[in-house]
Amino acid sequence: MGKTAKVIFQPSGRRGEIIEGKTLLESAQKLGVDLESICGGKGTCGKCKVRVEEGFFSKDAIESSMSHLSPMTDGERKFIKEKDGPSMRLACACEVHGDVKIFVPEKSRAGKQIVRKTAKDVTIALKPAVRKYNLEVPKPTLHDLSMGDYERVCRALKEQYSLANLQMDYFVLRKLQDLMRLGEWKFTVSVWKEREIIRVEPGFVESCLGLAIDVGTTTVAAYLCDMNTGRVINTESMMNPQVPYGEDVMSRITYAMTSEDGLSTMQKAIIEGINDLIEKITTEIPVNGGERGHNILDMTVVFNTAMHHIFLGFNPEYIGRSPFIPAVQDPLEIKARDLGIGINPSGYVHVLPIEAGFVGADNVGVLIAEEPYTAEDIVLIIDIGTNGELLLGNRNAVCSTSCATGPAFEGAQIKFGMRAAPGAIEKVRIDPETKEPQYKVIGKADWHTHIEKVNAKGICGSAIIDVIAEMFKAGIIDKSGKIIKDLNTPRVRLDSDGKPEYVLAWADETSIGTDITVTQGDVRALQLAKGALYAGAKLMMKQMGIEKVDRVILAGAFGSHIDTRSALTLGMFPDCEIEKVYSVGNAAGDGAIMALLNVDKRDEARDRARWVKFVEIAVEPSFEKEFMAAMHVPHMKDKFPGLKSMLEKENVPVTIKA
Amino acid sequence: MGKTAKVIFQPSGRRGEIIEGKTLLESAQKLGVDLESICGGKGTCGKCKVRVEEGFFSKDAIESSMSHLSPMTDGERKFIKEKDGPSMRLACACEVHGDVKIFVPEKSRAGKQIVRKTAKDVTIALKPAVRKYNLEVPKPTLHDLSMGDYERVCRALKEQYSLANLQMDYFVLRKLQDLMRLGEWKFTVSVWKEREIIRVEPGFVESCLGLAIDVGTTTVAAYLCDMNTGRVINTESMMNPQVPYGEDVMSRITYAMTSEDGLSTMQKAIIEGINDLIEKITTEIPVNGGERGHNILDMTVVFNTAMHHIFLGFNPEYIGRSPFIPAVQDPLEIKARDLGIGINPSGYVHVLPIEAGFVGADNVGVLIAEEPYTAEDIVLIIDIGTNGELLLGNRNAVCSTSCATGPAFEGAQIKFGMRAAPGAIEKVRIDPETKEPQYKVIGKADWHTHIEKVNAKGICGSAIIDVIAEMFKAGIIDKSGKIIKDLNTPRVRLDSDGKPEYVLAWADETSIGTDITVTQGDVRALQLAKGALYAGAKLMMKQMGIEKVDRVILAGAFGSHIDTRSALTLGMFPDCEIEKVYSVGNAAGDGAIMALLNVDKRDEARDRARWVKFVEIAVEPSFEKEFMAAMHVPHMKDKFPGLKSMLEKENVPVTIKA
Repeated sequence: MGKTAKVIFQPSGRRGEIIEGKTLLESAQKLGVDLESICGGKGTCGKCKVRVEEGFFSKDAIESSMSHLSPMTDGERKFIKEKDGPSMRLACACEVHGDVKIFVPEKSRAGKQIVRKTAKDVTIALKPAVRKYNLEVPKPTLHDLSMGDYERVCRALKEQYSLANLQMDYFVLRKLQDLMRLGEWKFTVSVWKEREIIRVEPGFVESCLGLAIDVGTTTVAAYLCDMNTGRVINTESMMNPQVPYGEDVMSRITYAMTSEDGLSTMQKAIIEGINDLIEKITTEIPVNGGERGHNILDMTVVFNTAMHHIFLGFNPEYIGRSPFIPAVQDPLEIKARDLGIGINPSGYVHVLPIEAGFVGADNVGVLIAEEPYTAEDIVLIIDIGTNGELLLGNRNAVCSTSCATGPAFEGAQIKFGMRAAPGAIEKVRIDPETKEPQYKVIGKADWHTHIEKVNAKGICGSAIIDVIAEMFKAGIIDKSGKIIKDLNTPRVRLDSDGKPEYVLAWADETSIGTDITVTQGDVRALQLAKGALYAGAKLMMKQMGIEKVDRVILAGAFGSHIDTRSALTLGMFPDCEIEKVYSVGNAAGDGAIMALLNVDKRDEARDRARWVKFVEIAVEPSFEKEFMAAMHVPHMKDKFPGLKSMLEKENVPVTIKA
Repeated sequence: MGKTAKVIFQPSGRRGEIIEGKTLLESAQKLGVDLESICGGKGTCGKCKVRVEEGFFSKDAIESSMSHLSPMTDGERKFIKEKDGPSMRLACACEVHGDVKIFVPEKSRAGKQIVRKTAKDVTIALKPAVRKYNLEVPKPTLHDLSMGDYERVCRALKEQYSLANLQMDYFVLRKLQDLMRLGEWKFTVSVWKEREIIRVEPGFVESCLGLAIDVGTTTVAAYLCDMNTGRVINTESMMNPQVPYGEDVMSRITYAMTSEDGLSTMQKAIIEGINDLIEKITTEIPVNGGERGHNILDMTVVFNTAMHHIFLGFNPEYIGRSPFIPAVQDPLEIKARDLGIGINPSGYVHVLPIEAGFVGADNVGVLIAEEPYTAEDIVLIIDIGTNGELLLGNRNAVCSTSCATGPAFEGAQIKFGMRAAPGAIEKVRIDPETKEPQYKVIGKADWHTHIEKVNAKGICGSAIIDVIAEMFKAGIIDKSGKIIKDLNTPRVRLDSDGKPEYVLAWADETSIGTDITVTQGDVRALQLAKGALYAGAKLMMKQMGIEKVDRVILAGAFGSHIDTRSALTLGMFPDCEIEKVYSVGNAAGDGAIMALLNVDKRDEARDRARWVKFVEIAVEPSFEKEFMAAMHVPHMKDKFPGLKSMLEKENVPVTIKA
């Protein structure tokens, strides 16, 4: 054994004696230091940059320090940029010749941290299921007949990356020999879960793409991610192509049960729809052999239980009727080609676990994105889609349930309801004195006053909540939701059925040539929807012995558009400090992205989906009573300190008749 | 804990204290006794029959012995037949109430031994990759929402059979819920390698089928096996449908390289051909849902390296030219649906490993069937197909090689050569005095003498060897293979080119209206073929320092038809005692069957394929010299003691001109 030198790596603090002449990369590998190397130490990827912190040298004289390391080579110099800062070296090219202290910058670590942009700024470690490895093998000769090309790949992976016992997907094996020769014995293999080789590409390739999908009953969202950096590169969405077969979950289950080939028709529709999304989302990705989608090597997907079953081709009959038993709750890993999904056919589609019959993988996505199981305070998470799903608890226990909110939040069952699209009124304020509204239309920058023509077309979900909360605060409806007729304003009038309605926009402000009104029926529909959410949350609190919720998180694309003040005013959820109510956007999609970028999150999802206690509120005897009570607007200020404090700050009189 | 009793199981000798009231099956499971139980102890399969050997009782008074066991139930009595012999009980129905000694008959053991009918009478243990398990789960209720149906199956497998961590194939999962309900919560799962559930059937099913396939260049053979008993239930064969694209390996490789879609055309041909075989071989199998072929749950396949590559869709270009590198040597497990093979789509096709570029999985089949690696004596195994493959050695070392014998043994390149089909002359004797032949035609019971018309059509491989050996012994050819003209018999004459030929059958004995002759060219073609085999064997002996072969095994469908005496006379292989030369039939197919019935044989195949040393004889400098020498008929009696002893016993003068 030769002379050794002491090498210390920061920030891990790992240290040890290294034989002189070994490279810094070899030292890092020997000492178990997390240091990225895609090319396996060939000096071709430039990923293993490190900063020399100390040798036996003064910190000012960097050049002299190099005596403890081999001189910088030309190949190395190519990768070291000025912006990297001083004293940077390529660890694979730099030999140890004396004691040194090395700092591994964040971006040179394999297990990088990425920052997710939400209210909480969660950081997650990068640990994707698929990683790429650059390989080079010697050209075989007649004197080297003891192995086939597959065995040569395995030997190289073991020697260069310590990866052993790998399988190779049959579809990859079919092209292996041609591709190895095409790259002149230089090639890149993509390894899934350190278990299976799912792609071989000629030459050295770095790009590693993954796709996270959130299949909602109404909307499907896709997120294309760079699995080397954790960045979301592109986002696409579409209407769920199953909508023609039923607007909601139950009607699709019925379609599957009653129409010939109903299930396979709907399965085909969603698979083909996702394949179209894959086409669109990869439009700008350079093609690296084969179809563009084949560059996507891994995929995660979340959905509610019915969408889960239909996507997978499982008969949804049994989740549609008592006792609501799903085919499977565990997470699944399915070959993309077995599903017909147009990512790489050798790649896997990871289906997140479901919690119970009515609480699906989308809620598990919310769960791992928001991590209520790590919270000290009591968190209520409301994910509003076509159905409402609730999570309540903290590190000690979390319960989940599903509420049949109906489609009112999405604009259905509302006279002038529409989806959140250009022309939809999305925000509303009403002057409590004059009862005159102001509103904002999607696609217009400013708030409308009655002076300007804005071509409104209808009211979307967030504005429905706004307008009814504002009507309550302005005294236009009472606590029971009844519209008060004798208010001396032209805005409140009787409709053709003799029922009162409130005119939100006069015909000349619209593009539809008629007044946009909020009817008594609209108010009732919203009361039913918000009542279901409120009662669900209340029953969960009761079951868990919780008196007060500390934090309310609104999730879902819709949830992120709601005015939290209006929602609190209306009583969509139990009382809470308004400062502790916030929106996080599509948390289910965030969960799918996290599971894509970090396999530990998949384990977490599996374990936590089982750990969360599902509460079936419909079978609870007191549900009916809670639901009836929850329909009212919460006017009893004393029992709602959070609401009271908010309204007082807003200077709302709340002198409504009790 | 209750009172215990002593229970002894024979023939394993396992014993222990068992709590009284436990059944004999539970006792066997606790003590690790190998006792079959397909229904998991429900008393429905009748597989766990055992004989009561001793309690505290006299052997004559069986009835009184029953006091140490619970009385026989009616359900039990149904399964106990008179032919089972006295004192039989169903272990799962019979409770222990005192000390007993129990004998587990062969047929009640899960790891049954089966006897294979070959010259050696090999016994192999039954340990198939796929086993069936009967399950019954309680109907789920609203109070049991913590798991899906898949999780219920897993729980039952764990509780009833101690099987844990099982995956379920996605295609099975799709039908799971319907099938569980169809069987009213009684169903049977098929488990592959204790890892993956590959089938669910409603009700309790026992039948478990597997298929072993030997894909030869010319012929494909299929063996349908009962994986519960190890019996071969049915056999089918066909011409390899790739024959139109090339008669031999090299011409098919060329076709793949030069024709557009040549590879996929040939792959499709063999896959569809095998699917036709599957149709035929299962004609009498009762359909149990789905297609008939879907009842086949496992498959093994052997072939030479070129057939291996084409079957798998691997470009065969690289095994066709130096340095002859295959895509993969290791065994493969491929989902049947990924190959398009018509067994159960969730089942696997196990592809046996190959040894080297020219020595394929078929030779590995021969290897594990004949096990030369367990032999004390030196064994030479000759597998003659379109190519000749040799194995030589014993427990210390085994070498393999491949010889380009050409197609002479199969009747090609022989003027009147034909396949072994009705009308082919298959055996020949020549009177050394008169030079008159006797021959036997396939499809005719008796030997032909020139008196009777037998409608011969041509000469098949075994008869070519016979006739040339007989011509030599009768002095019609000399040691160099030259036909001697001045023999004073009309049987030897000159053909139209002025070259000598021997008339084997006169035109009026044939159905082709012309004399069937053996030409000088035929003799040369056979000399080339047998010379290649002989030289190959000699070079291997030289490399291994072996002077003498103790045993010669002729394998292959053709090998089993050869007259071993003629083969020894001609010098197809190095000298050996004639008593130690024997045929084993299609040993490659036997190997495929063994690997189907016992997964340990698959491991053995993988390990031994690597252990066997491949000798590339074409690169050996002395090959040309050995080959030239081997073309001669071995006339030097003193150097061939085995041959000498045989010929002396046959009273052959062997006074041929040297």
